Amino acid sequence: MTSKPDAILMHPIGYVHNSVREKKDSFWGDDTSVIRLHEEYHGGLLGLEGFSHATVLVYLDKARYQRDKHLQRHPRDREDMPLTGIFAQRTKDRPNQIGMTAVEILAVDKASLTVRGLDAIDGTPVLDIKPYFPAFDRRDARTPEWTDRLMENYF
Amino acid sequence: MTSKPDAILMHPIGYVHNSVREKKDSFWGDDTSVIRLHEEYHGGLLGLEGFSHATVLVYLDKARYQRDKHLQRHPRDREDMPLTGIFAQRTKDRPNQIGMTAVEILAVDKASLTVRGLDAIDGTPVLDIKPYFPAFDRRDARTPEWTDRLMENYF
Repeated sequence: MTSKPDAILMHPIGYVHNSVREKKDSFWGDDTSVIRLHEEYHGGLLGLEGFSHATVLVYLDKARYQRDKHLQRHPRDREDMPLTGIFAQRTKDRPNQIGMTAVEILAVDKASLTVRGLDAIDGTPVLDIKPYFPAFDRRDARTPEWTDRLMENYF
Repeated sequence: MTSKPDAILMHPIGYVHNSVREKKDSFWGDDTSVIRLHEEYHGGLLGLEGFSHATVLVYLDKARYQRDKHLQRHPRDREDMPLTGIFAQRTKDRPNQIGMTAVEILAVDKASLTVRGLDAIDGTPVLDIKPYFPAFDRRDARTPEWTDRLMENYF
């Protein structure tokens, strides 16, 4: 291992504003959220209106990763799910607690972005916004059998 | 704006090991990388072998965001590209400098993950690994005309 700075410092580029006060486990598709950017990033959304979707990275500040509970667990604590490592799950209680969602773009202006489908509660800090390129999709990707059962009622 | 802690502290879960010493602008699809996890995360990859792909989030520690140069720029400094905000581009010199790539999984063990197609140089800190769910793809996503010209020689 080469010597590396072990601590990484980040700052929110803005915050999520919506009417969601509590985390939900399942369907988020209908929620509308506004991401208001810090003033120093005003203008940074120029051209995003040409994209239909964006990937939003947020800091899940209410999540708490505890090694003994979360390093390996049964997804959603369901007995019928296999014991699974934290990096083989999308659950929020994870190291560095970064949330990642592809959202639909509804409106773009100098200081804010309005989206549909962001799975983050009101007040969540935003780390990054990236335009969505379907060319980077992995359409041939395979997932294990248990994920089908987990997501049965998701959509 | 509600009062929020403005600084977010993260720690790498591990580091990228490969033979790539310098950043490249274009094709990364053939490179093989090994992500070695810190000891406290050993076992956290359990079950990832059931997925064909993962999304890897890295901290692009060599990138430098400068507001006057990067808040708005012409992608790849090409005159034939429109002036574009940092959040409508995927370039690495961005606030919080998080890199995001969907990679092919080649091998999984207790302490490391071997992948193909990670666009990060040797020694890059890794922030998160998430299993890839094609169900979350936005296959109907649209991108503006200039992205087709930008990516003409990408694949």
